[in-house]
Amino acid sequence: MDDLKIKSPQDIKRFDISELSEVADSIREKIIATVENNGGHLSSNLGAVELTVALHYVFDCPDDRIVFDVGHQSYAHKIITGRADNFDGLRKNGGISGFPRPDESEYDVFTAGHASTSLSVALGFAEADRQKGEKRRTVAVIGDGALTGGMAYEALNAIGSEKLPVIIVLNDNEMSISKNVGAMSKYLTRLRASKKYSRLKSEIRRAVSIIPLFGDGAIHALEKGKALLKRIVLSGKVFEGMGITYCGPFDGHNIGELVDVFSQMKNKDAPVLVHVITDKGHGLRSAKVDPAHSHGISSVNASDSALYSDVLGKFLIKAADSDGRIMAVTAAMSIGTGLEEFALTHPEKFKDVGIAEEHAVTYCAALAAGGMKPYFAVYSTFLQRGFDQLIHDVCIGNYPVTLCIDRAGVVGSDGVTHQGVFDLSYLLLMPNMTVMCPTDGAELEAMLEFSVGFGAPLAIRYPKSYAYTRDHAPIEYGKWETVKKSQSNVYVLCSGGRTLDIAEKASKTRNMSIVNCRFAKPLDTEFLKSINKRGNIVVTMEDNVSRGGFGESVLAYLNGIGNNVECRIIAHKDEFIDDRDVDSSLAESGLAVENLTKLIKSLE
Amino acid sequence: MDDLKIKSPQDIKRFDISELSEVADSIREKIIATVENNGGHLSSNLGAVELTVALHYVFDCPDDRIVFDVGHQSYAHKIITGRADNFDGLRKNGGISGFPRPDESEYDVFTAGHASTSLSVALGFAEADRQKGEKRRTVAVIGDGALTGGMAYEALNAIGSEKLPVIIVLNDNEMSISKNVGAMSKYLTRLRASKKYSRLKSEIRRAVSIIPLFGDGAIHALEKGKALLKRIVLSGKVFEGMGITYCGPFDGHNIGELVDVFSQMKNKDAPVLVHVITDKGHGLRSAKVDPAHSHGISSVNASDSALYSDVLGKFLIKAADSDGRIMAVTAAMSIGTGLEEFALTHPEKFKDVGIAEEHAVTYCAALAAGGMKPYFAVYSTFLQRGFDQLIHDVCIGNYPVTLCIDRAGVVGSDGVTHQGVFDLSYLLLMPNMTVMCPTDGAELEAMLEFSVGFGAPLAIRYPKSYAYTRDHAPIEYGKWETVKKSQSNVYVLCSGGRTLDIAEKASKTRNMSIVNCRFAKPLDTEFLKSINKRGNIVVTMEDNVSRGGFGESVLAYLNGIGNNVECRIIAHKDEFIDDRDVDSSLAESGLAVENLTKLIKSLE
Repeated sequence: MDDLKIKSPQDIKRFDISELSEVADSIREKIIATVENNGGHLSSNLGAVELTVALHYVFDCPDDRIVFDVGHQSYAHKIITGRADNFDGLRKNGGISGFPRPDESEYDVFTAGHASTSLSVALGFAEADRQKGEKRRTVAVIGDGALTGGMAYEALNAIGSEKLPVIIVLNDNEMSISKNVGAMSKYLTRLRASKKYSRLKSEIRRAVSIIPLFGDGAIHALEKGKALLKRIVLSGKVFEGMGITYCGPFDGHNIGELVDVFSQMKNKDAPVLVHVITDKGHGLRSAKVDPAHSHGISSVNASDSALYSDVLGKFLIKAADSDGRIMAVTAAMSIGTGLEEFALTHPEKFKDVGIAEEHAVTYCAALAAGGMKPYFAVYSTFLQRGFDQLIHDVCIGNYPVTLCIDRAGVVGSDGVTHQGVFDLSYLLLMPNMTVMCPTDGAELEAMLEFSVGFGAPLAIRYPKSYAYTRDHAPIEYGKWETVKKSQSNVYVLCSGGRTLDIAEKASKTRNMSIVNCRFAKPLDTEFLKSINKRGNIVVTMEDNVSRGGFGESVLAYLNGIGNNVECRIIAHKDEFIDDRDVDSSLAESGLAVENLTKLIKSLE
Repeated sequence: MDDLKIKSPQDIKRFDISELSEVADSIREKIIATVENNGGHLSSNLGAVELTVALHYVFDCPDDRIVFDVGHQSYAHKIITGRADNFDGLRKNGGISGFPRPDESEYDVFTAGHASTSLSVALGFAEADRQKGEKRRTVAVIGDGALTGGMAYEALNAIGSEKLPVIIVLNDNEMSISKNVGAMSKYLTRLRASKKYSRLKSEIRRAVSIIPLFGDGAIHALEKGKALLKRIVLSGKVFEGMGITYCGPFDGHNIGELVDVFSQMKNKDAPVLVHVITDKGHGLRSAKVDPAHSHGISSVNASDSALYSDVLGKFLIKAADSDGRIMAVTAAMSIGTGLEEFALTHPEKFKDVGIAEEHAVTYCAALAAGGMKPYFAVYSTFLQRGFDQLIHDVCIGNYPVTLCIDRAGVVGSDGVTHQGVFDLSYLLLMPNMTVMCPTDGAELEAMLEFSVGFGAPLAIRYPKSYAYTRDHAPIEYGKWETVKKSQSNVYVLCSGGRTLDIAEKASKTRNMSIVNCRFAKPLDTEFLKSINKRGNIVVTMEDNVSRGGFGESVLAYLNGIGNNVECRIIAHKDEFIDDRDVDSSLAESGLAVENLTKLIKSLE
């Protein structure tokens, strides 16, 4: 690793093609060593090492652009483009981001984090080049998993229509985040099967790869050839039907072959799709054995005491045993949201729709309209994709869909693209939506029990983990729970466990009443009325942006009834958060014991 | 028309197939007469009359379900399912909705209004049936335009995977809202070409249609047949590749043929796609001539004095003449947003991406990252589809994308699914977003001029029309305009022209200062500080929900600096609005002269 002297893509180009495999091995080693320490996306990055080396060998970045979809396969790219020396700061505060970030390097041409955006981005760049009369090449690297997201089809449609020379590299890595689902995935599985066969017939495959491009003539020629080849080309029809020339599949770990094909494609004047097969976790035995579990691994010293996702998973398994209406839906996040065991125990009640949050939300609405009781388990940041469907399909119809929103609030290492700090705001604005925030696992369980009998849209939002479990008052619709009563005139209204922890710690040095505002919507108006007395001080705390959030909703309610209290809102500021540490992100926004005690002292 | 004695689908079934064409003609007449008076979607509904008659002849609703995508083709369905007598109340308050509404009829199985949701809905219903062991049939009727929306592909993927007996009717009506774009559309155009040929070869086509389903055997048989047929089947491969059996295309105005094919398909145990070709505006000469313009027509007595969309269109044409960076992007709404002329004068700068708001937003972000200056013209309600992309691709990167948000605020006849009353809330919560609201056409023009030099995300939101034009102070970033100064202690803060009109009228009977809060974000904090004096009264008005909107943002700011004023927020309530009249919708929320004067009187 110490001998990895690659300071820029120029250094890659100095090697002989035959040496590149060794370079890739060094990069791979560096990735494994770093991720073992820092956490991160291991298997997807290991799968893309040779591919990335070949791309940088053929293309001239930063003049040419490589757009990584999701960006969870960009570590090799980061190492090659001048960030090898700082790579041990990966995902840490002040260090290298786990995703492409233009403010980090000119080689990272666009921010990524959410799936299926790369094709739209690549087309936008290519169009800007056309408008300005510039000749730069744009490559989009997109995994097969991201091709389950509808946005990718919208872009493919547009790319086929515009006919701009975008080079799409389909990195077919056999696994997206969890088991790939859907017809597109099955189609790729068929191709993989043919690939095995084609390895035996490598001469024939090579013959195909050197046909300049599969125009009509080429197709005609191939139809006379082997049935296998025909099948491959026919399968490429899905893309060709969209006006995008398809070629492949190629071995994504054979750098020489990749360099060949990229060299042939780099100066084409039309959109091209290069289908590359890679092993997710290539070069790492444990990743190969179980790529789903090594997709995103946490730092070795991460201490997540207890996971909300475990509570959700266990509850749904038990509930579905006795209630035939209960179903669990996820969008390629079965492990992260705690549904892996449910998928095994209730396979008929479990739906992983792929990275397709739009479909997932509306599908749940129709399941509910049809009499079922669906639970959509999703990360806060990814539910943003279903915003319109929540309003249009769930809330207007007032259907009993339950959203189990994990990774709500700040998320730490994943950084700016993954912060779950908007959901309170975008859910509170939706008529008919009820929003709950548990403070620990036992309360999440109680809320889930409550949800079973609840007949309208319901969102339950929580971060990854909770610190401890305490006794709770029973859940009652729209009622908050006073956790600590005090003679003080200070009322701390907490939305969620992270804020409750802060308040409880602060209450050791200052007097305050602490309220667990388990319902963020509707507000407990009876309680708010009862404390709306001159001299009282209300402090709200939430792990969400202040704009449109819980605190502003409390303030607006108090204002509407003639506000007599002093009201202070502690929430995230109106700016993006790229802090990679949960506690320091919280503290930066005043969600810290010291800040709360200081504030209360200043108000008393 | 008076002899149209159809009270339920049962009445359709009593006719002989040969008589159904006459029934369809009567329905068509009724639609034309009603839409001429009430406004509505004319051409799409006329195209679907025979199709709808055939569906109700074959299927048994409401036990079987017909899910209409968008729902702008559901008028014949409404007439057939017991609403013929009330049809003259179409789109009026208390009358029949222009879209499917479950609270209106048991035959309307799911609310629609936005595109591309029907396949997810149909699959959800089919899955619920499977879970409950029920045997009901589910038909999704989806236009070719809605197939440009990515969500439809997410659902097709899932349908192919689940293998449930969903019957998809692809209503290929040659035009979506404006000119269809993209590769999928070109593919359908090719099919249309082959259809003309196949009409001559009708015997062959009939032979195809009676082959039970195009299984492998059938494909094999056809390959021996005419090249044309092979091409059709191969084109169907796009769907078959997703595991959905494809058949067609069929003449969508030949009821006998449609009844045949639906009867064959109705009891299949797997997903089927029936491709039907219809003429949008069938039976209406003017619609045929110019279907784009007869897509959505307004009521004859609608008086829209002046359109914001005209201002946008004219401005962009002129601006693009002199500034090579300027581009205009729309998602199938070129006419409604005022870009039709721009498309003709600057075809190279104009992009209609189809009904694909997700792609449109990210594409604009990349155009901007590439140095262009994109303007995305979009309806408020449809921009909800791009919510995640606005945060993830536009705002994190802080790219100078300008959103020209038309139909913001209440929209009248289109009703609940189309209200543009959430955009202020969902835009204000986004870091880096600037939000402006013009009060008339001249101010929109000034804002657009301002936008050209503005280097960050910018949203300008406005309703369809404005009432008059007045002189304005020049636009200055983050500064409001005092329209009327008064010695009174009352400050009315207006967001947008509708509210300014109300305030100006109210000021004739009561003293008040009127402020045009042209920036909803950032707030004019200097101004707010200057009026934050005990005894002052601040009334905010906005055509948006109160939750997370402009008024709450003002209140939160004042609270943060130590609020000394009495603050009242006038905005829409936290409920869905199905009022079909703009003025009464506004009044219902207190956005009316009488309410404002009364409120001020009570506060003085």
